[in-house]
Amino acid sequence: MSGIETTGSKRLVLVSGRAHPELAEQIAVELGTELMPTDARTFANGELYARFDESVRGTDAFVIQSHAAPINEWLMEQLIMVDALKRASAKRITVVSPFYPYARQDKKGRGREPISARLVADLYKAAGADRIMSVDLHAAQIQGFFDGPVDHLFAMPVLLEHFRKLLDPQTLTVVSPDMGRVRVADIWSDKLGAPLAIIHKRRDPLVPNQVSVHEIVGTVEGRVCLLVDDLIDTGRTIVKAAEALKKNGATGVVVAATHAVFSNPAVEILQSDFIDRVVVTDTLPVPMEKRWDRLTVLPIAPLLARAIHEVFDDGSVTSMFDGAA
Amino acid sequence: MSGIETTGSKRLVLVSGRAHPELAEQIAVELGTELMPTDARTFANGELYARFDESVRGTDAFVIQSHAAPINEWLMEQLIMVDALKRASAKRITVVSPFYPYARQDKKGRGREPISARLVADLYKAAGADRIMSVDLHAAQIQGFFDGPVDHLFAMPVLLEHFRKLLDPQTLTVVSPDMGRVRVADIWSDKLGAPLAIIHKRRDPLVPNQVSVHEIVGTVEGRVCLLVDDLIDTGRTIVKAAEALKKNGATGVVVAATHAVFSNPAVEILQSDFIDRVVVTDTLPVPMEKRWDRLTVLPIAPLLARAIHEVFDDGSVTSMFDGAA
Amino acid sequence: MSGIETTGSKRLVLVSGRAHPELAEQIAVELGTELMPTDARTFANGELYARFDESVRGTDAFVIQSHAAPINEWLMEQLIMVDALKRASAKRITVVSPFYPYARQDKKGRGREPISARLVADLYKAAGADRIMSVDLHAAQIQGFFDGPVDHLFAMPVLLEHFRKLLDPQTLTVVSPDMGRVRVADIWSDKLGAPLAIIHKRRDPLVPNQVSVHEIVGTVEGRVCLLVDDLIDTGRTIVKAAEALKKNGATGVVVAATHAVFSNPAVEILQSDFIDRVVVTDTLPVPMEKRWDRLTVLPIAPLLARAIHEVFDDGSVTSMFDGAA
Amino acid sequence: MSGIETTGSKRLVLVSGRAHPELAEQIAVELGTELMPTDARTFANGELYARFDESVRGTDAFVIQSHAAPINEWLMEQLIMVDALKRASAKRITVVSPFYPYARQDKKGRGREPISARLVADLYKAAGADRIMSVDLHAAQIQGFFDGPVDHLFAMPVLLEHFRKLLDPQTLTVVSPDMGRVRVADIWSDKLGAPLAIIHKRRDPLVPNQVSVHEIVGTVEGRVCLLVDDLIDTGRTIVKAAEALKKNGATGVVVAATHAVFSNPAVEILQSDFIDRVVVTDTLPVPMEKRWDRLTVLPIAPLLARAIHEVFDDGSVTSMFDGAA
Amino acid sequence: MSGIETTGSKRLVLVSGRAHPELAEQIAVELGTELMPTDARTFANGELYARFDESVRGTDAFVIQSHAAPINEWLMEQLIMVDALKRASAKRITVVSPFYPYARQDKKGRGREPISARLVADLYKAAGADRIMSVDLHAAQIQGFFDGPVDHLFAMPVLLEHFRKLLDPQTLTVVSPDMGRVRVADIWSDKLGAPLAIIHKRRDPLVPNQVSVHEIVGTVEGRVCLLVDDLIDTGRTIVKAAEALKKNGATGVVVAATHAVFSNPAVEILQSDFIDRVVVTDTLPVPMEKRWDRLTVLPIAPLLARAIHEVFDDGSVTSMFDGAA
Amino acid sequence: MSGIETTGSKRLVLVSGRAHPELAEQIAVELGTELMPTDARTFANGELYARFDESVRGTDAFVIQSHAAPINEWLMEQLIMVDALKRASAKRITVVSPFYPYARQDKKGRGREPISARLVADLYKAAGADRIMSVDLHAAQIQGFFDGPVDHLFAMPVLLEHFRKLLDPQTLTVVSPDMGRVRVADIWSDKLGAPLAIIHKRRDPLVPNQVSVHEIVGTVEGRVCLLVDDLIDTGRTIVKAAEALKKNGATGVVVAATHAVFSNPAVEILQSDFIDRVVVTDTLPVPMEKRWDRLTVLPIAPLLARAIHEVFDDGSVTSMFDGAA
Repeated sequence: MSGIETTGSKRLVLVSGRAHPELAEQIAVELGTELMPTDARTFANGELYARFDESVRGTDAFVIQSHAAPINEWLMEQLIMVDALKRASAKRITVVSPFYPYARQDKKGRGREPISARLVADLYKAAGADRIMSVDLHAAQIQGFFDGPVDHLFAMPVLLEHFRKLLDPQTLTVVSPDMGRVRVADIWSDKLGAPLAIIHKRRDPLVPNQVSVHEIVGTVEGRVCLLVDDLIDTGRTIVKAAEALKKNGATGVVVAATHAVFSNPAVEILQSDFIDRVVVTDTLPVPMEKRWDRLTVLPIAPLLARAIHEVFDDGSVTSMFDGAA
Repeated sequence: MSGIETTGSKRLVLVSGRAHPELAEQIAVELGTELMPTDARTFANGELYARFDESVRGTDAFVIQSHAAPINEWLMEQLIMVDALKRASAKRITVVSPFYPYARQDKKGRGREPISARLVADLYKAAGADRIMSVDLHAAQIQGFFDGPVDHLFAMPVLLEHFRKLLDPQTLTVVSPDMGRVRVADIWSDKLGAPLAIIHKRRDPLVPNQVSVHEIVGTVEGRVCLLVDDLIDTGRTIVKAAEALKKNGATGVVVAATHAVFSNPAVEILQSDFIDRVVVTDTLPVPMEKRWDRLTVLPIAPLLARAIHEVFDDGSVTSMFDGAA
Repeated sequence: MSGIETTGSKRLVLVSGRAHPELAEQIAVELGTELMPTDARTFANGELYARFDESVRGTDAFVIQSHAAPINEWLMEQLIMVDALKRASAKRITVVSPFYPYARQDKKGRGREPISARLVADLYKAAGADRIMSVDLHAAQIQGFFDGPVDHLFAMPVLLEHFRKLLDPQTLTVVSPDMGRVRVADIWSDKLGAPLAIIHKRRDPLVPNQVSVHEIVGTVEGRVCLLVDDLIDTGRTIVKAAEALKKNGATGVVVAATHAVFSNPAVEILQSDFIDRVVVTDTLPVPMEKRWDRLTVLPIAPLLARAIHEVFDDGSVTSMFDGAA
Repeated sequence: MSGIETTGSKRLVLVSGRAHPELAEQIAVELGTELMPTDARTFANGELYARFDESVRGTDAFVIQSHAAPINEWLMEQLIMVDALKRASAKRITVVSPFYPYARQDKKGRGREPISARLVADLYKAAGADRIMSVDLHAAQIQGFFDGPVDHLFAMPVLLEHFRKLLDPQTLTVVSPDMGRVRVADIWSDKLGAPLAIIHKRRDPLVPNQVSVHEIVGTVEGRVCLLVDDLIDTGRTIVKAAEALKKNGATGVVVAATHAVFSNPAVEILQSDFIDRVVVTDTLPVPMEKRWDRLTVLPIAPLLARAIHEVFDDGSVTSMFDGAA
Repeated sequence: MSGIETTGSKRLVLVSGRAHPELAEQIAVELGTELMPTDARTFANGELYARFDESVRGTDAFVIQSHAAPINEWLMEQLIMVDALKRASAKRITVVSPFYPYARQDKKGRGREPISARLVADLYKAAGADRIMSVDLHAAQIQGFFDGPVDHLFAMPVLLEHFRKLLDPQTLTVVSPDMGRVRVADIWSDKLGAPLAIIHKRRDPLVPNQVSVHEIVGTVEGRVCLLVDDLIDTGRTIVKAAEALKKNGATGVVVAATHAVFSNPAVEILQSDFIDRVVVTDTLPVPMEKRWDRLTVLPIAPLLARAIHEVFDDGSVTSMFDGAA
Repeated sequence: MSGIETTGSKRLVLVSGRAHPELAEQIAVELGTELMPTDARTFANGELYARFDESVRGTDAFVIQSHAAPINEWLMEQLIMVDALKRASAKRITVVSPFYPYARQDKKGRGREPISARLVADLYKAAGADRIMSVDLHAAQIQGFFDGPVDHLFAMPVLLEHFRKLLDPQTLTVVSPDMGRVRVADIWSDKLGAPLAIIHKRRDPLVPNQVSVHEIVGTVEGRVCLLVDDLIDTGRTIVKAAEALKKNGATGVVVAATHAVFSNPAVEILQSDFIDRVVVTDTLPVPMEKRWDRLTVLPIAPLLARAIHEVFDDGSVTSMFDGAA
């Protein structure tokens, strides 16, 4: 038969944006390799540029970017990197966005609003991404916004392992900071073998113009409360919840969240006396000036590295969790 | 200049599948017109067929179908009708699916599951639909599954109008049957000026192997309870919730839901003594054999007709509701 | 160079819908493997669900489904399975539909009709199918409806092998039941070395309102007639053709068809005395209650297994046949 | 409300390629307008160019081209014109290709063949065509190759009107030149009230290596035979059929075909004594040097003009024929 | 016939991003209307949001944004607005980007680079834009990056009108600052009836390691030089060119450019004594702190307003210029 | 685990159109293999056909075609071959078009023009091409017209190697025939270490109606001039440039160009005494009747073969050049 036949091989490459290079480097270390050397720059007028220093032809490329502020810069940089990979004949391109950008804009609350989380999925597709990998999506339905595979990872095992050593289930209560997060808190309560409480912010419908109250459902008096959420943005919700818990007799309040968005004034108010400890992961960069003594930042790189390896090796990402994914 | 110039005009046509022709006919009556005469048939081996008896060239076509069982038949019939309209040069095709098919399969709960609600959006697109109109989507994020406009209507005004005449806010409590529906119940409580209660199904984490209990959050004793949900499928959740309410002292239990799926054994068990009244709309057909004396079926046709008219006329569907859409 | 390099490998998996599991199992046996363990279910309201129990990441997946009644259920199940495979990172997805659904709706006979065979190709594409494999398409042009490779297999070798042992070319005549099938009958006549006859149903244009007559072109008196067609639906055409043949002196009538659709009243009327034997394949399930003593069902699994193996191995499907494909 | 509101209008423009400008001009005359002034050119190295001299912004544009030899030139010119219209903001673009290019390559007869008729549909789509209008497609399934509306016109009424005046049904027989065209001949026989005959080219399977014979099914002796086909390419099939008819006693042979491809040596051999008259339409240009005394060329422009007008006016093309389309 | 028929109308709406609201307001004034009231915001973590206060259903929407720094913010805001318009059923969406973002990244200079100007076109498409309007694209080929109409406007008439009053062709020489801009300068020289000169930056190939020299081709001694370019970014090229001109005897140096990017240190160095006057348009905002006494900023709004009006009215944008477009 | 697992392999195949089979054969020889045996034909009416004689399933296929006149024939043949490969399950299809067709129509010079170079990219995509390989694109921006990888090769190393042996940098001057080609000439001057001159065709703006003059910028007297361009079409520009050089004292004129389009009357006028030698590559066929004694045709096959091998092997095409790509 005509033509040339050879055995195939495949090569994984890790590309990193400039938002959170430490995370990408840790992933590379976990995988026992190095990041693709890349020339990424910002021109005088704010336009971005990226070029890879080695061939990426035929590779299985993972483009790691953390979507901290300035979030639109980093999204655009990631899109430009995907475009460059596509045009340089990468075989498969996976966008690794541990904190999915615009995840909270996942539906039209009113007419004439955008659905920006869907838009982001469309932009990734348009640039040339074949797959998305993310951690703890704000709404699981975002998986359905992308026309292709989405590896949805869960930080809970990472956080759980940390808390199992620290907290005693006998005195612990898991608390959901609002109604929308009850399902996640329920899984935590199940995994830790601790009871559940819920904070319900609402107006009293029988009294007009009354301000919202933080009603606590469940027992918190004399207990250590673990407040769980997917992200902490300005921190206001969490601090008010912690205050309500302490005022209702909680002996301790510990906060666990995957994504440390930490917009102003989060760093300041989270140091409130109502909160004894905050534990987050580094899906987003937490620079030194945003850290304080009662903050613990757990590394997310081992989780991402393991998932990337399974994806490259056609292993099972699902099997990484006990039934959770 | 060369060519021929004329003033433009536009024509709305209503096409109906065979799942629920009464609904389509009522919409036509509301709009002061008639349904497109259509030859729709099922061949001996189960293949479907549809052909329109009048020209549809250049029209603004609305394809109305209710997705009751056999749900896949009716979905396929609707897709075939969209294909026929596209090939016959309809200008714009809107799928009117009051109960969005497969709405509850809106995310991957575990690995290797489909996201069938997204698949349905893709099938509509592939057949040639430009727009979707639906009522009370199970998750609002489904809007983001379709690459185009989705008119998401709310049945609440229809149901509210009914209840405002019947129920006294002074003795009423709005109840969410589970944690996932609290947000909807909260809006009801706000609109009716009545307090809110929640039913929380869960295992007691401190006692191993204990069965789930129906814990009631809020006051129901001596009150008339309005259980609100988006749909009633087999009815089991609702009946258990009603039982818990009555056993906790509720003087009455009324159920409100938009979509009367009424799969077996819903019709039988909903006639339980724990439930005093069930009020639904006819987004899905409720045939005579599925009705009983304490069931009220409100017509959804006026809402759909008004929205269709606004869409055809480039009016505002948002303005149909006081801020709800 | 940065990154990780390994040798590639590839894995074939067989997924089966619930329409005709025996066929899929026979294919797996032929290939010396097992079907993907799958949880496929129908919910109370008729919505379908499917989930795979093993990782399918990176696989070359074949989704086998037979499109018997209820044909729309089985088509939707297959689409859902393709969606689940796509989202679980299968590398390539081939839809194996031995009897292509809606194949007879392959053109607009009149204005405002759908082209449902094209619609089915579009739905497969929308769900995520990369390739289609089918047997004896009603019109070969259907290959052109799909934007990608279509492996069009022919059952004729399977049927021919059977008849070569049974029939004597010296006394045999191949008969086409109508004008539209002459080309297929011509190939049979060539392969078997037997003369050809044609049945022409038509009105006599010189006599108004005369009913159609079954005119026989060619010699059938004293001969064994082999009626060949791609499918038998209700069986009416075939029985009338057989009657005409016997009445014109045929000493025997044997029927060969690939697809045993067998819609009502096929099973009953095919047992007519005008027909001595019916030979079909099991591209569609033929349950025990649809079988009778003069029916022979030949297994199609060996053909499909061989084609699947060639596709997986990048072999030649064309070479499977002596020039027929 | 903000913005500017005006009443809409619409403008039809006719664009013509250079393959058959007379046809486009006749269509313009029928419609009472003029062709778009266009600068169409061929550069020294064979590259084509086209530019319109008037604004086409917002127009309903019809791009008329006849696909005579050099067929690839004229196809490319049409694609270039569609591209120019798309980029100049035409609102809707309809490709008018009376003789669909590559219509006979509508399926894979063997492995590794193209399906060029589908490719042509894809090229039209890629260039920006929204719709296709064509006359007497070689296979009706080609409609399904395009993802959009196809207006499939029939020349039969034009040809029929001509023959009704000329031929006497009492002495006429309609003849199909081969098995593949029987269905079309059947409709002719029905419309003219004349009997049908068929010419069957085949090998005698009982005699090895025997050359094909032209067997005539039906009565032709003493009758005027009307041979009908969709196109005449080299003319060889038609001439052989005519010869067989005359040798079997036909008193006259008249040929009717829609598309006068007339490749060499058609013009020469069609002047055979076996053929008394050839009647075609001018879907393809028939220049003076390809005409002879016994050839009649009927104008197709009125049919196309009427269809274009209906499409522009959102009228019914279906209604132009008595149920035929 | 069934259905409802009405006459059509169309409505233009102007939507503005927050980068350069004065420009959008001036366009609205030119058109005699007002901007769409819009709620555009930046959340704490940098995510953007936009919602329109009036219905946009069925409108012809123009989304005006200027791509000054922070350029990625403003691009993302524009994409989000397009997404919101698409989902709110706008009929046609035109992106108005007077200074096309990333226009200088229009090709791969080396391997593994992105083509970001194409990426931007793909992002516009993915968000839902139907058309693009821009002024003086850095390379005209960018029109070909978008799969749809691009209205490419020229600022030259605006600038020319200004200079015709100010400069005397008898003493004027038009100068291209480098080889890549000669064609534009040539048109200026033709329009103004003034001779052309070119500045050629190059190394002397006969002398190794020599630094580049600014060689002037043409006569500048004793003449007023008009340096023309499409944009001024940091200003370094222009200042060096002006210095070379003055040192070669030019009696005056005037600079004309369409896009005032004015990245650091442009504002400072452009005030050099080598430059007598700088004339730009306000395609990009030029805030007060970036203006100085010898800078003239011409309004681009009248040009954009006229083009938008022609597009809305299906007039000819081409005819706005004397053959230039 | 279920399924079958094997090691993967990959196979390169070379397919050739009929425009320039010698080039494809030379590439095959360079690669040490043979061309795919192919049945390519032109039917009587000009329609083309192609079929491959061996399986192409799973292959990495390169479709080599040279776009000489009749350019539209060869483009269509290439598209048909791509379609056949796609439908026969080739894994990846690269179009190898050494001279990109319609490259000079890369922008809209005026309103209502096509952008045919973009159209060609769209046609390749529509047919099924995954990648494009070309040599010396007329404008580098054409890379951005294709939504996928474009391997843009440079013939300069091939030409340079030839000239390094022949010409003495001490007496050589590199000349650009017009303003638009200066950048290419600049690289040549740099590589050869020879000074640069430019020919400037223009009207004198101070004298009305004066014809264009060929002004020479730089020193050519007493020097050997190397005129460089990407292509030679009719040759008129080159011959006039050579005439101007000789008349200004050049002692020799040598012409270098990549693409020998050689449309009439190129072959005749290039033999002018003003030109001492013409050196081109065979990206386009140069048949014997288009050759003369002072013409040198360098083989481009080694360059293409090396690039194809790198693409197949996932090597770096960029590294083939010293920074040029």
